[in-house]
Amino acid sequence: YSSGDVRRVTLIPGDGIGPEISSAVQKIFEAANAPIAWDPVDVTPVKGRDGVFRIPNRCIELMHENKVGLKGPLETPIGKGHRSLNLAVRKEFNLYANVRPCRSLEGHKTLYDNVDVVTIRENTEGEYSGIEHEIVSGVVQSIKLITETASRNVASFAFEYARQNGRKVVTAVHKANIMRMSDGLFLSICREQAALYPDIKFKEAYLDTVCLNMVQDPSQYDVLVMPNLYGDILSDLCAGLVGGLGVTPSGNIGKEAAVFESVHGTAPDIAGQDKANPTALLLSAVMMLRYMNLPQHAARIEKAVFDAIADGRAKTGDLGGTGTCSSFTADVCARVKDLE
Amino acid sequence: YSSGDVRRVTLIPGDGIGPEISSAVQKIFEAANAPIAWDPVDVTPVKGRDGVFRIPNRCIELMHENKVGLKGPLETPIGKGHRSLNLAVRKEFNLYANVRPCRSLEGHKTLYDNVDVVTIRENTEGEYSGIEHEIVSGVVQSIKLITETASRNVASFAFEYARQNGRKVVTAVHKANIMRMSDGLFLSICREQAALYPDIKFKEAYLDTVCLNMVQDPSQYDVLVMPNLYGDILSDLCAGLVGGLGVTPSGNIGKEAAVFESVHGTAPDIAGQDKANPTALLLSAVMMLRYMNLPQHAARIEKAVFDAIADGRAKTGDLGGTGTCSSFTADVCARVKDLE
Ligand SMILES: CC(C)[C@H](C(=O)O)[C@@H](O)C(=O)O
Ligand SMILES: CC(C)[C@H](C(=O)O)[C@@H](O)C(=O)O
Repeated sequence: YSSGDVRRVTLIPGDGIGPEISSAVQKIFEAANAPIAWDPVDVTPVKGRDGVFRIPNRCIELMHENKVGLKGPLETPIGKGHRSLNLAVRKEFNLYANVRPCRSLEGHKTLYDNVDVVTIRENTEGEYSGIEHEIVSGVVQSIKLITETASRNVASFAFEYARQNGRKVVTAVHKANIMRMSDGLFLSICREQAALYPDIKFKEAYLDTVCLNMVQDPSQYDVLVMPNLYGDILSDLCAGLVGGLGVTPSGNIGKEAAVFESVHGTAPDIAGQDKANPTALLLSAVMMLRYMNLPQHAARIEKAVFDAIADGRAKTGDLGGTGTCSSFTADVCARVKDLE
Repeated sequence: YSSGDVRRVTLIPGDGIGPEISSAVQKIFEAANAPIAWDPVDVTPVKGRDGVFRIPNRCIELMHENKVGLKGPLETPIGKGHRSLNLAVRKEFNLYANVRPCRSLEGHKTLYDNVDVVTIRENTEGEYSGIEHEIVSGVVQSIKLITETASRNVASFAFEYARQNGRKVVTAVHKANIMRMSDGLFLSICREQAALYPDIKFKEAYLDTVCLNMVQDPSQYDVLVMPNLYGDILSDLCAGLVGGLGVTPSGNIGKEAAVFESVHGTAPDIAGQDKANPTALLLSAVMMLRYMNLPQHAARIEKAVFDAIADGRAKTGDLGGTGTCSSFTADVCARVKDLE
């Protein structure tokens, strides 16, 4: 490829194990000759003149320039008034769809071997509105906010995603039997979008029922779309079925920009010890390559990662192996080159 | 026992398969000489002069008299303005704690064989407040209401339950990282109660994390206490681990009264065909006996049910057997008599 094809990506290495796993991704991308140049940036909030902490301008500028970001885990600063930094990034860039594919991994056995689902979560409102009041002492209300606009954004994203990825069924997950107006609105928008995608089968299901069925037989589900909190819950449940947050990728996608991120913690207990598993961030970077329309590079790196896990020799401790972050990275690099 | 010892219980047989499984319970209680007399009552809502549908007075009176009820599944009448009848019963009698034990069943194999958890769900408020508004067209808010009073009721119930049932750990399940004020209040009340029960270990965990861990290793949990919607979700997830809603009991408990109920549906497709599995209602009735301080009768019936399932010959179709509701009932009756 010519250097003109190189695309710039904002890299937020993150805290704890973030820098190690980010550097693993960079090495593997280099080995794979992926046409990506990284712009590393810090997101530690800066206190403005008004006393409010904000994501640094440099990060915001870079995101607006590059439109695509890769992000490791962030520690939320301790103290009242700090909302999760991970959430701040999603909101700042209106990344309204959070996509988390969960697939059973060959080479990492769990109780399930037939999981292949994608949760698509509304990422900007719902139970995450941040609006809460104490009405009188001892009586608190939190507001779940559902809008037609955000619901349509995520619903249309889900059907488009299904179509473009050869998926057959989209299930809207809700509790409209209880929250008739809010989940009712979400559901009605999903139905409206479903009508525009006659090639995709549309289903509706209660969240509680989906949780029950998912642990009994995950193979009955395909793509699932839902309000914010339900997605938080169901994506973690599904991740649990295939091995946890260390092996599942995530993408936050909006109209203008997208940030791909591992959603596990910063693991301060093992940070800097070369023990971290870079798989989640790597697979998130693979999602990013597909989003950037670089499917060959995506497929090659993905295969190398899956093969390295299936082979097992360089698997990290969290997957029951004896490998390190660097030995696993080296193994994936070698495989990526072989696949060229 | 003398007839003076007989205690009256309000029986709401319910819709669909409700009458069949209720009559199974009655037969088994008779075979077990359980000192219970049943007052069957209908709860089909009656339209008042003001046009509003309400639970019939007779049912309300009977509940106030008997204080204890057993309830099969209810169909919610179709049409706008009807809220779930199942919920109406919980609210009407302020049954603030919903208790759902989930234990792996010998004789019904699932992927898990080490489940023994109890979810305790706040049952009167939270996301089920029913308060919703359309602010402007396309913008809806639902209110999650958390009060100190209801939180304390359910939290203190959970610790008392743990103590009385020889349980070691109570985990408060929350999203106070997101809903800082509402879940924050719930959590602070749980902490306050925990301090009064030094014999019970107290833990706190995010709902999403609990879902992930639960499907990976349920043996790490014991008693879990949480706001309404989280309990709806997590109790169904846990039921899924042990075989579904057909085999898991439920109790709704308040200061004045308690209603035990199977939480599966009315299964209209098999109603009246002698195919229904009465296990969930039976085990709910067993919880009821313990609540009424009749532990010997409870233990005997419970053992008979477990043995019948483990033996397998009379197991119903939903559990992969060839039995019917009546053959299973007859089997349990015979076992109950043998255990005398
Ligand atoms: C870190 C936390 C605020 C976040 C959430 O609740 O969304 C996390 O659980 C996630 O799923 O990304
Ligand atoms: C029937 C429905 C309204 C109810 C609920 O949401 O609580 C059910 O799912 C339950 O768990 O009892």
